[in-house]
Amino acid sequence: MNPLPSAASPLLSPDGPSVTGSDFSITDQAATQQARDQDVGLRPGTLKLRPGALRPRLFLVSYHDDFIEEKEYSGNYALLVDYLRQHPDLKHWIDVRGYGDLPLMEQLMQDFGLHPLQMEDVLNDYQRAKADVFDNNRLFLVSRMVDFTETLEVDDDQLSLFTGPNYVLSFQDDYADCLEVLRQRLRTNFSQLRRKSPLYLAYAITDVVLDHYFPTMAAMGDYIERLEERLFAPRRERRLLNRILRLKKDMVRFRRLVYPERDKIAELLRLPDEVIPPDIKLFLNDGYDHAIQALDLAEGYRESISSLTELYYSEQSNRMNEVMKVLTIISSIFIPLSFVVGLYGMNFQRQAPDGSINYANMPELYSPYGYRGVLLFLALVVVGQLYYFWRKGWLSNR
Amino acid sequence: MNPLPSAASPLLSPDGPSVTGSDFSITDQAATQQARDQDVGLRPGTLKLRPGALRPRLFLVSYHDDFIEEKEYSGNYALLVDYLRQHPDLKHWIDVRGYGDLPLMEQLMQDFGLHPLQMEDVLNDYQRAKADVFDNNRLFLVSRMVDFTETLEVDDDQLSLFTGPNYVLSFQDDYADCLEVLRQRLRTNFSQLRRKSPLYLAYAITDVVLDHYFPTMAAMGDYIERLEERLFAPRRERRLLNRILRLKKDMVRFRRLVYPERDKIAELLRLPDEVIPPDIKLFLNDGYDHAIQALDLAEGYRESISSLTELYYSEQSNRMNEVMKVLTIISSIFIPLSFVVGLYGMNFQRQAPDGSINYANMPELYSPYGYRGVLLFLALVVVGQLYYFWRKGWLSNR
Amino acid sequence: MNPLPSAASPLLSPDGPSVTGSDFSITDQAATQQARDQDVGLRPGTLKLRPGALRPRLFLVSYHDDFIEEKEYSGNYALLVDYLRQHPDLKHWIDVRGYGDLPLMEQLMQDFGLHPLQMEDVLNDYQRAKADVFDNNRLFLVSRMVDFTETLEVDDDQLSLFTGPNYVLSFQDDYADCLEVLRQRLRTNFSQLRRKSPLYLAYAITDVVLDHYFPTMAAMGDYIERLEERLFAPRRERRLLNRILRLKKDMVRFRRLVYPERDKIAELLRLPDEVIPPDIKLFLNDGYDHAIQALDLAEGYRESISSLTELYYSEQSNRMNEVMKVLTIISSIFIPLSFVVGLYGMNFQRQAPDGSINYANMPELYSPYGYRGVLLFLALVVVGQLYYFWRKGWLSNR
Amino acid sequence: MNPLPSAASPLLSPDGPSVTGSDFSITDQAATQQARDQDVGLRPGTLKLRPGALRPRLFLVSYHDDFIEEKEYSGNYALLVDYLRQHPDLKHWIDVRGYGDLPLMEQLMQDFGLHPLQMEDVLNDYQRAKADVFDNNRLFLVSRMVDFTETLEVDDDQLSLFTGPNYVLSFQDDYADCLEVLRQRLRTNFSQLRRKSPLYLAYAITDVVLDHYFPTMAAMGDYIERLEERLFAPRRERRLLNRILRLKKDMVRFRRLVYPERDKIAELLRLPDEVIPPDIKLFLNDGYDHAIQALDLAEGYRESISSLTELYYSEQSNRMNEVMKVLTIISSIFIPLSFVVGLYGMNFQRQAPDGSINYANMPELYSPYGYRGVLLFLALVVVGQLYYFWRKGWLSNR
Amino acid sequence: MNPLPSAASPLLSPDGPSVTGSDFSITDQAATQQARDQDVGLRPGTLKLRPGALRPRLFLVSYHDDFIEEKEYSGNYALLVDYLRQHPDLKHWIDVRGYGDLPLMEQLMQDFGLHPLQMEDVLNDYQRAKADVFDNNRLFLVSRMVDFTETLEVDDDQLSLFTGPNYVLSFQDDYADCLEVLRQRLRTNFSQLRRKSPLYLAYAITDVVLDHYFPTMAAMGDYIERLEERLFAPRRERRLLNRILRLKKDMVRFRRLVYPERDKIAELLRLPDEVIPPDIKLFLNDGYDHAIQALDLAEGYRESISSLTELYYSEQSNRMNEVMKVLTIISSIFIPLSFVVGLYGMNFQRQAPDGSINYANMPELYSPYGYRGVLLFLALVVVGQLYYFWRKGWLSNR
Repeated sequence: MNPLPSAASPLLSPDGPSVTGSDFSITDQAATQQARDQDVGLRPGTLKLRPGALRPRLFLVSYHDDFIEEKEYSGNYALLVDYLRQHPDLKHWIDVRGYGDLPLMEQLMQDFGLHPLQMEDVLNDYQRAKADVFDNNRLFLVSRMVDFTETLEVDDDQLSLFTGPNYVLSFQDDYADCLEVLRQRLRTNFSQLRRKSPLYLAYAITDVVLDHYFPTMAAMGDYIERLEERLFAPRRERRLLNRILRLKKDMVRFRRLVYPERDKIAELLRLPDEVIPPDIKLFLNDGYDHAIQALDLAEGYRESISSLTELYYSEQSNRMNEVMKVLTIISSIFIPLSFVVGLYGMNFQRQAPDGSINYANMPELYSPYGYRGVLLFLALVVVGQLYYFWRKGWLSNR
Repeated sequence: MNPLPSAASPLLSPDGPSVTGSDFSITDQAATQQARDQDVGLRPGTLKLRPGALRPRLFLVSYHDDFIEEKEYSGNYALLVDYLRQHPDLKHWIDVRGYGDLPLMEQLMQDFGLHPLQMEDVLNDYQRAKADVFDNNRLFLVSRMVDFTETLEVDDDQLSLFTGPNYVLSFQDDYADCLEVLRQRLRTNFSQLRRKSPLYLAYAITDVVLDHYFPTMAAMGDYIERLEERLFAPRRERRLLNRILRLKKDMVRFRRLVYPERDKIAELLRLPDEVIPPDIKLFLNDGYDHAIQALDLAEGYRESISSLTELYYSEQSNRMNEVMKVLTIISSIFIPLSFVVGLYGMNFQRQAPDGSINYANMPELYSPYGYRGVLLFLALVVVGQLYYFWRKGWLSNR
Repeated sequence: MNPLPSAASPLLSPDGPSVTGSDFSITDQAATQQARDQDVGLRPGTLKLRPGALRPRLFLVSYHDDFIEEKEYSGNYALLVDYLRQHPDLKHWIDVRGYGDLPLMEQLMQDFGLHPLQMEDVLNDYQRAKADVFDNNRLFLVSRMVDFTETLEVDDDQLSLFTGPNYVLSFQDDYADCLEVLRQRLRTNFSQLRRKSPLYLAYAITDVVLDHYFPTMAAMGDYIERLEERLFAPRRERRLLNRILRLKKDMVRFRRLVYPERDKIAELLRLPDEVIPPDIKLFLNDGYDHAIQALDLAEGYRESISSLTELYYSEQSNRMNEVMKVLTIISSIFIPLSFVVGLYGMNFQRQAPDGSINYANMPELYSPYGYRGVLLFLALVVVGQLYYFWRKGWLSNR
Repeated sequence: MNPLPSAASPLLSPDGPSVTGSDFSITDQAATQQARDQDVGLRPGTLKLRPGALRPRLFLVSYHDDFIEEKEYSGNYALLVDYLRQHPDLKHWIDVRGYGDLPLMEQLMQDFGLHPLQMEDVLNDYQRAKADVFDNNRLFLVSRMVDFTETLEVDDDQLSLFTGPNYVLSFQDDYADCLEVLRQRLRTNFSQLRRKSPLYLAYAITDVVLDHYFPTMAAMGDYIERLEERLFAPRRERRLLNRILRLKKDMVRFRRLVYPERDKIAELLRLPDEVIPPDIKLFLNDGYDHAIQALDLAEGYRESISSLTELYYSEQSNRMNEVMKVLTIISSIFIPLSFVVGLYGMNFQRQAPDGSINYANMPELYSPYGYRGVLLFLALVVVGQLYYFWRKGWLSNR
Repeated sequence: MNPLPSAASPLLSPDGPSVTGSDFSITDQAATQQARDQDVGLRPGTLKLRPGALRPRLFLVSYHDDFIEEKEYSGNYALLVDYLRQHPDLKHWIDVRGYGDLPLMEQLMQDFGLHPLQMEDVLNDYQRAKADVFDNNRLFLVSRMVDFTETLEVDDDQLSLFTGPNYVLSFQDDYADCLEVLRQRLRTNFSQLRRKSPLYLAYAITDVVLDHYFPTMAAMGDYIERLEERLFAPRRERRLLNRILRLKKDMVRFRRLVYPERDKIAELLRLPDEVIPPDIKLFLNDGYDHAIQALDLAEGYRESISSLTELYYSEQSNRMNEVMKVLTIISSIFIPLSFVVGLYGMNFQRQAPDGSINYANMPELYSPYGYRGVLLFLALVVVGQLYYFWRKGWLSNR
């Protein structure tokens, strides 16, 4: 490890990415962006920053069984390296958040003995969860941190981990993460985390990321429930189906994120005991069960969302049915009535031009009970029809 | 085994969980709860109680070829341990129902030599069926007890089993279980259960849980039949499709529960004969057939429910069709009639302002047979149309 | 073999099961019954009769290269055993139809050296096709005999076979079977069946059962064709979709029956040559091809039935379309006409109250050609509309 | 090889099968026939002719590097055998088309050393593509020759091949085949076919059959295109969906035919080099790629047909929509107009019975501008509505 | 390598193929063409040109660590071969674009030691991506270059690569390609490409082709978005569903292209280190991740397109619903009004023929408030109905 001084130079997008995902569109704009960002013809292993990469912040947590120190070294990489050199006895967690400083990234690559292809994976911003062994016993782990954001989208950031003899080096896309609970555990005096090897810390970080899938799913579950309620609201929004389909796609994407996570753990379990000691494999086994459980739950949610679309179509059909019923009831009642009153609006003449009286021509018109009789008849028709429709159950709300 | 006295302290939720699952919602609220309950960032192997865990009740069944004693030790764990120590010659079934006492759980873990990760699985409340060997020849089995409740939902509780040299230790979520038939068999004097090893008891418990899947499915089958009847009822409820879709999701969940059960048995069958003796493998083979049979049946039911949704949509369309037919018949009959009577309601004047008579203007009105002729014509139109509709089969109920 | 005298005692349901499957319901009542019948908590290997099991009838076919004798021993099990003992040189086919006599079943189990778990499979009434080796070189084969009944349902009975040194012991649910063709072949003097070992007889029985799948499928194919015709009939029955869906479920069930049949043969083929001699394996290979062919055909039928449901929905939609067209044509023609005649029914007065004549008020009414002009105009409107609809193809039958 | 004289006796159906497949029915009548033809209870290996089997025609192509002779020996099997015996130095292709002569078939079986079960497969008329080795290094190959007939159906015939030391023996269902191109190649003087072993001829025949799948698919592709055009024709035929679904089923069947073809080649590739020399395996590799390509194409066509059904439903819905729009436009325009003219058809009297004038009662009727005003108002209503509908895009053709 | 002079003779289609793919048709005309082009009965390994093959253009890039020369040798193959012979120390990339010159192709085959079957694959124009080793350590690679054209279709061309000791020989269908970025990298002085072996160049070409999949997908993603917008446009085009379904089929085809690409890389990774050195395998590993990522993205897009069809149907149904609502609102308001005015258009006579006044016959007509009362009543009916429809949410846009 040959630390070289490096000033973190904020070259790119100082104010971070502004994501404005439409809540409605089913198109996967993030995916399209991801596809568009892919560099064509660039030499593999060439480092290149994404537009919008955040200016890196450096955090160091150094600890021992009964000691812990946390400090931010953003912009002072040289100091961090000095500290690491001066404390080979401590265990360190170097946490780099944001990539927007290419020289620093190359420096880190050199200082921590990473391969350019690995560094490319780190900066690539979209990499499936995976586990690689390098330098015989070092691990390169990629996890995907998932969150269900307030804009009702599944957001996933990449977490890359490198283990070393006495440190864990982590890279994240974003400043915010879901690892605060872990830092809290580290701060606890008698935490097992503090006493165990950095490999255990790497495992613990991976595990926390995996555990965070569950609240994400719970949030999606709540959203499914809200969508179901909206489905049956009298004035439902026009693009409700878009929302449902978008959620469905997000759930499918979520599952595509979890599968490699499971495979990653399975791969770690297959590594020889020299790389992953048996006691850590015991914990990995537990993590494997969690990953399968997450997949089971996700599968269940996918079913729920499929049911939502079925309900949507059925409800759409129900509403059409209701419209048709109103039309049918009104028409069926009034069209015959109109005929009857039209009948007595005919101009058949009782009195022929020659003055003779023709009693057969519309005698009702001259009857003293004619008008009242017709009104009564009309009322009877209405009552009869209403009874018929009530019998068919068309007057109730289905 | 180092028994330590332990007072079962009722720390949490003394009156048990109150589950109020809506019959209608297709959302998997239980799953969402389960996802939400997942602890993020907790050290793996840290015991933690679910909110709403029941206060544990302890039952002991001690037996030998020609002896059996059943006793509840709830709140008297120390006495139970004493009894176990004093009777190493007997076989014991220690049955713990409810987990709501963390110190007791830790005590049990220590006394029976369980691993914290195993105990975490026990308390986890949702664990797929699985089989692990530990301490060379002890088994840790997880089964899921399934029930189709009166609120028409599939309810599943976890049963965790640990075998030991002369005992079986079981943990259950709930006080009620489906194992009473087994206890009855144990009480029978010449039961094979009494003469065989505790491993056989463990197998028998697993088998009873598996067998209980069949009445659960029978209840679901009955419910499918009731739903089908309701589908064709004249006034069907508005949210019938919700019910159907919920049942479908339950059936899918049910299958996801049974698959690991089958795999669990397959795994047990692959264990060496020292762990599972051949005579027990013979019985396991039988259980394997049962699991496959359960999957076959569940598959058939899933088909039936899919058919239900198809019938639902078809019936919905049929009803729309019927509405349209009524509208069409009434309109088609009366709109032409209205035209005819409107025709003779026109005010064309026979007598021009100059007093001259224009015999071409509506001579029908002056004919002595005009009115009767029109009435006859209208009647013929009605008859003709009714005949046409009858020919098309629109007057019958499809 | 230690034959003990046994009087076949008709304990249960002397008149057999009365199955009244509704032709309409898509619910799998048989499956529900099967699920309900599953014994919970019964010790595995405990013999128990199904309610409705038939009183057993015993048939014996004894044969040699140039000898054959067929006799029914129903109620005379002791005689049968005597005969078997006296003729160790003959080959025997003991055919037991119906299980409704528990002591006899236990006797058979003991006399022919069967395992209680095997006997439980025999009585279980629903067992997937399978092949087990026991006592080193004896076979226990389960086949499912399938029939498409006159009530248009797939009916499947179980056939269990045990081979022995010089006999085949078969158990069937029902008195009627599809094995008569085989008995006929046995009766033929130079039949290969008579000269070969009982194992070959067992194979031949299995093969006949498998071959019977083809006429069953042919009957289902005929039924599919009849359903398709009914689909387009002018007055189709209301629950035609139920029929289609029921058939679909039956076809799916049929495939679930055939798959294990294929796997059974594959398993037999994997057995060592000491158990299944190569010459019989040659025949089994042929049977394997047949099973795959049956699956291919069944897959094709499943496609056909799926197409039926698509046609059903399309036809439903077509009929709705036709209803709408009639409504639209009638309304479109007569509503404008009614407007015109309504127009001339207005009471605008030519003569103002002050007696002055207002020639602008409805002069048509006073024209000598008014009425005829209007009639002509109405006729032109009708002709024009009819032409428009004819051009759109709405007047033809699509 | 012991040739016995045999007169080809035309026992059955001298004029061949008359297949009258309805173009419309989605039912797989061929499959039903196939299922019905299956012999139940016949001893496996018993030769039996299908009803309608063609009278066999015998063709012999004998060739060497620079020699070729083609001759038909129909009815003169003895002569053919003589010729074969006299020319052991030539390579022979014995091509039998039609099976309708049982004694000849048995003779062939004996003379060429075939197994009865193989011969049964040949006559069986429906056998999946497969490859078997027998007599150590002889091959029994089954291919399915596929054609898209002029009656728009997928027709498949069976081609069975047996290789021998210096000959290939082929059996076909039908007189016509797709092998003429191969015969043409044989006739070419410097053809590789002539110089290579009969095994290469067998491979070449198989390859030509496989290659013929492509024009078959091209014909189906053309038909799909024609169906798509018909879909949007103004007067589409009533049973267009039947056609589409039938084609779909045919495509599915086609894929079921190609899969075993691919597996057959894969199996041949796995055979030891003594059976299939490496140079022929090189060609087989090429054939394997072709089979996969055929599957890829078939998959693409299946997608196209699925899209056709989606288009069908959408178009059906579009047409309904159009009907509804016409109804709505006509009704919406004329119903309000009718109300207005009805309004002025009311008989409210200006002059009360007591002779007093009530100017409030319908003064419009007495206004000199009344009639013209109403007409103007009606025209404005019509224009307004037309504008509204035009804005909504209902007046255009969607 | 025995170069023979060869004049590139422009035999076929000098102006290239004119592809006129309809934007609308869902039929896969390219596939049909491909199926039709398949040669039936041609000897495998026989070179044959597709109709429309382009006249070949020859490009040579010769380079060394600090040297590069690019030159077009179209029509001067002899010169190219001379150059190659004179510079065995340089690395060469011979790039052949277009195949339309059979003698040249055969010459190339001979000079570079290719197998006729390989050359057939090159000319075949449709070959799945694959990797073969020949002559122990030479590679034959096929890639498919994909582009989303301006006519909104997925266009794929074949790129075939042969490696040799000091050269890479590539064949392309078309003059235009996506490899310009790579040539640019070659031109850079310190490019790794220049320093590494030709094998690395072959890998780099493959990698660029693979990377080009991403902009292709991005273009498809943009198109999906545009289609979604059009879906909700007020006047959507009649054949929008055709477009969607066509895109779906293209996406499915795209995935079928990428899968073999992934398998190809996996196969290369399995090759021994002598063929593919470890350092190149490192890069291949990276390419493998890219291929999987491409599949993941394509899967996501497929979901999006499926959602588009669902939205299409829903929107179609919504529009029908809107039409029905307009009809229902207009009819429901005016049909009752028409009845009322029809009522007062009846001709019931107050004055009987005998002159007596019958005050019961339509007294409203004589009331001074009659007309105004009726108008008020009609207004109230309208207001009431509008309120009812507003309450139901039918007046808003859903």
